[in-house]
Amino acid sequence: MRINNKYYRSIWLKDDAADVVQIIDQRPLPHEFIIEDLKSMQDCAEAIREMHVRGAPLIGATAAFGMYFAVREALNSESFQKHIGRAFIALAETRPTAVDLFYALRRMQQVIDNCEDLSLVAEACLNEAQAIADESAEQCRQIGLHGLPLIETVSKIKRGGTVNILTHCNAGWLATVDYGTALAPIYAAFDKGIDVHVWVDETRPRNQGARLTAYELLQHGVPHTVIPDNTGGHLMQHGMVDMVIVGSDRTTRKGDVCNKIGTYLKALAARDNDIPFYVALPVSSFDFELQDGLKEIPIEQRSDHEVKYIYGKNEHGTSEVLLTPAGSPVANYAFDVTPARLVSALITDRGICKANERSIVQMFSPEMAV
Amino acid sequence: MRINNKYYRSIWLKDDAADVVQIIDQRPLPHEFIIEDLKSMQDCAEAIREMHVRGAPLIGATAAFGMYFAVREALNSESFQKHIGRAFIALAETRPTAVDLFYALRRMQQVIDNCEDLSLVAEACLNEAQAIADESAEQCRQIGLHGLPLIETVSKIKRGGTVNILTHCNAGWLATVDYGTALAPIYAAFDKGIDVHVWVDETRPRNQGARLTAYELLQHGVPHTVIPDNTGGHLMQHGMVDMVIVGSDRTTRKGDVCNKIGTYLKALAARDNDIPFYVALPVSSFDFELQDGLKEIPIEQRSDHEVKYIYGKNEHGTSEVLLTPAGSPVANYAFDVTPARLVSALITDRGICKANERSIVQMFSPEMAV
Repeated sequence: MRINNKYYRSIWLKDDAADVVQIIDQRPLPHEFIIEDLKSMQDCAEAIREMHVRGAPLIGATAAFGMYFAVREALNSESFQKHIGRAFIALAETRPTAVDLFYALRRMQQVIDNCEDLSLVAEACLNEAQAIADESAEQCRQIGLHGLPLIETVSKIKRGGTVNILTHCNAGWLATVDYGTALAPIYAAFDKGIDVHVWVDETRPRNQGARLTAYELLQHGVPHTVIPDNTGGHLMQHGMVDMVIVGSDRTTRKGDVCNKIGTYLKALAARDNDIPFYVALPVSSFDFELQDGLKEIPIEQRSDHEVKYIYGKNEHGTSEVLLTPAGSPVANYAFDVTPARLVSALITDRGICKANERSIVQMFSPEMAV
Repeated sequence: MRINNKYYRSIWLKDDAADVVQIIDQRPLPHEFIIEDLKSMQDCAEAIREMHVRGAPLIGATAAFGMYFAVREALNSESFQKHIGRAFIALAETRPTAVDLFYALRRMQQVIDNCEDLSLVAEACLNEAQAIADESAEQCRQIGLHGLPLIETVSKIKRGGTVNILTHCNAGWLATVDYGTALAPIYAAFDKGIDVHVWVDETRPRNQGARLTAYELLQHGVPHTVIPDNTGGHLMQHGMVDMVIVGSDRTTRKGDVCNKIGTYLKALAARDNDIPFYVALPVSSFDFELQDGLKEIPIEQRSDHEVKYIYGKNEHGTSEVLLTPAGSPVANYAFDVTPARLVSALITDRGICKANERSIVQMFSPEMAV
């Protein structure tokens, strides 16, 4: 990923040393670009909980580095196992939805459990956290390659005319370690010279679309237009959207997709207008233990502050402003579930499959043996 | 309508004299309550165009007073007819969607055309503008009475349990002269002691829900919760919405409804979850000349400023903040069209009818003779 023409990942080791992990604090974007140091398990937990980082794959990578710090801290504590157990719970409780978080924590726990020599455990955990980050980046690159033909096909049908793609929230490189999920095929198409244009849902609350997706696309030079979340249906009714691509924080074995609140509404509009609705996700976002997403996936409710206030730039620098009457209650559900019946296909790092149990099992048979 | 327990309409003659019309400037609400004087046709046109007032019925009433001022100004001009003609066009061009605007202008033009004595024309026009405002308020009261049984029925089915109603944008008394359209049945139910709770879509851009509907309901004491526009689908999936009621800026003879952008998405979600989707509107919002709303209703595109910036309150008072990267383009479609097939019923001042041509013709047969 490029920021001011410099190559970045969204999480990395400072100076390639073992003491400090660095992230881009995503809260002040696009107005301020701030690199933050994470030096402890608590720093990582806080960064996830307070959404300095967000997006299922990046949450997973950050939690992995959190476990690495926890191991270093545990080596200096009275009870190694008790300290690790507490850290696991603290990191697991930061966000309830993204299954990547639990996947990364379990992988780290396995490394700890399998390490027989405590003098080697820190290094083993650092290697594992880096491997999780590297694999995540590679998975996203693969998602891009698998999704690219879908865009190429529309481009051919339109005889090279602009392919208009709508996306919701941010499922770009800022949500992952690199490349993105939903945006990976778009970057791949753009880099190949295909004429693409992205409708960017602003994505209230927190405005990850208006702040982060727009920022990413602008940095990469991809043509795009920011729209209020209310607008997508109108655009689809008038033939101004060729396809929808979104990410997923958790996907069930039957293909139900849990993603940023409002995704379901766009899926309904896509169906009503015969527009393909794709979900791009790495293997790590599957939760093979779940069948019915609507009944089984817990939906995080976040602080009312995120709805009542909004962050932006004004003549005094940056500021939060109150949007509602002070006395009005608000509700803040962070995700919704799009039933598999509304999903045209899943774009994964292993290829494209239908959003139903048979196709998913076929593609992921090793993991599905669980 | 009550504001700090004082009775107001949303437009009125100052001191019941003929020189100044007063409105509540809706832009700084809910943070500041400012009454604005309108003293000329230009003041009225500006108030509509810049959305000091909005909502189809209130736009109509404001345009009517604008024509009254135009007549007074025309009497002092060189060519009475030319001046009136220009004023008619200026007011008609302020907002392209709300058919109430054209309805009010045509009524005023008729009064002018029928007045044989120029010394009486100003008074006749003042009377007509006031009549339009009075009739509009009475229509909204009737909408409330006709919609009330729909809420009462749900309340009975739920054995007095809370009736949860979702609304989009502001179709309350701030959008009309008094009572509101979509909110009129809710106020009627609340005043009758029915346990109601309103989910208020914040309604980007311009946030008429978070700013105006929440403000109205708070002033009247009606329980409510503000939600991002993305949230309604999730609530409907989980049985947390009993019905949707929205307003309409223009309704075709076949029952297609043009309302604030995003209405269509809520109608899709209501249909997907078997929840009734009602549209409340006065007769003046029908456009009997139109059949197919999607093809025939022009959709206003407003300034990108309304999407890029948002208004709110902070430690410095009130302020606008920039939400997007400065270099990202935005689009701002103000309305969308909800096809009649998604509308459960229309709640009008003459009663309830189905959203199809036969039912509409039956109810409005005198006007349909056009």
